[in-house]
Amino acid sequence: MNVAVLTFEGFNELDSFIASAILNRMQPQGWNVQITCPTESVTSMNNVTVQAQQPLEFANSADIVLFGSGIYTREIAKDAQLLGRLKLNPERQLIGAQCSGALLLAKLGYLNGLPACTDLTTKPWVIEAGVEVLNQPLVASGNIATAGGCLASSYLAAWFIAKTAGLDAASNAIHYVAPTGEKEQYVAAMLAVIGKYL
Amino acid sequence: MNVAVLTFEGFNELDSFIASAILNRMQPQGWNVQITCPTESVTSMNNVTVQAQQPLEFANSADIVLFGSGIYTREIAKDAQLLGRLKLNPERQLIGAQCSGALLLAKLGYLNGLPACTDLTTKPWVIEAGVEVLNQPLVASGNIATAGGCLASSYLAAWFIAKTAGLDAASNAIHYVAPTGEKEQYVAAMLAVIGKYL
Repeated sequence: MNVAVLTFEGFNELDSFIASAILNRMQPQGWNVQITCPTESVTSMNNVTVQAQQPLEFANSADIVLFGSGIYTREIAKDAQLLGRLKLNPERQLIGAQCSGALLLAKLGYLNGLPACTDLTTKPWVIEAGVEVLNQPLVASGNIATAGGCLASSYLAAWFIAKTAGLDAASNAIHYVAPTGEKEQYVAAMLAVIGKYL
Repeated sequence: MNVAVLTFEGFNELDSFIASAILNRMQPQGWNVQITCPTESVTSMNNVTVQAQQPLEFANSADIVLFGSGIYTREIAKDAQLLGRLKLNPERQLIGAQCSGALLLAKLGYLNGLPACTDLTTKPWVIEAGVEVLNQPLVASGNIATAGGCLASSYLAAWFIAKTAGLDAASNAIHYVAPTGEKEQYVAAMLAVIGKYL
């Protein structure tokens, strides 16, 4: 399972790395999770520079594509050259977005009529793009999911795992990363959020 | 407020980046949060390479020092040359550790008689170092805190903020990053975990 975690200039560390680290719990099952960027390196909203593991085009053949979030998403949504490098297919790929990533899904036409989840800052821009925004952590329909609020990244990662490898695998991944002493309640919260979208 | 997030070779992305991103919510209040490494760059347990923002010695003059976690912590705990670069002082610095970072606090003598929280993998090694391990997300005494389970990083970050800038500031930071629709319950859970250690 090839997984592209799309990570752009000005990215939010929570939105790329919570999901990628949880998805990497599936490495023993052969998952190949890659920080995927338009340039050789990207620098976060907090000035942390990370080397790309894959170029943007890796997403085109990946099984799972996750759009991270960041402070320049509105500019990226207008960058036809950059977005033109993406040739995704929601018929054969699972596609998800975290926070402002929903704006890119809207721009690329994958939210056609679907409601979305996003963060409070991005919410007015997603509404402006003609998308209904829900006050909940995650929503999904078919192969498309969106999540809002940085820490909802764990729900989005769990949804990808549950959709492809089952709920037990998703529960195991969340159990591992959850706080000591709160593991059962974290797994229950995850099941409550994603269970209706599988 | 200078904050050193100690990030070593083989680091766990969750343990460095959840805390650093939440602590960076305090940037408008002048906080300077830095990924602090023993080398110019470090590569994570999932093969993601990050550039250091500061050398290890930055920690020696920081107000807050957070030991991240990773897959090589047992080796680092035996590396006298590397640990010798750290000259910390728990009298004037807040010092915390996430997951296997507790092993480094034990090695450096900061857990003298204190119980600790850590992850399930590291637990036997921390016990072997003579430290009692608690089945809860976070424990603190004076200026020293430890947290266990990757996602408990948000509690550790909130504890640092609450200790220095108050509970309202910690609540605001957690409210911002929490999942949409679950913000109040995330803040309440944080207050329940850290409230008794302030």
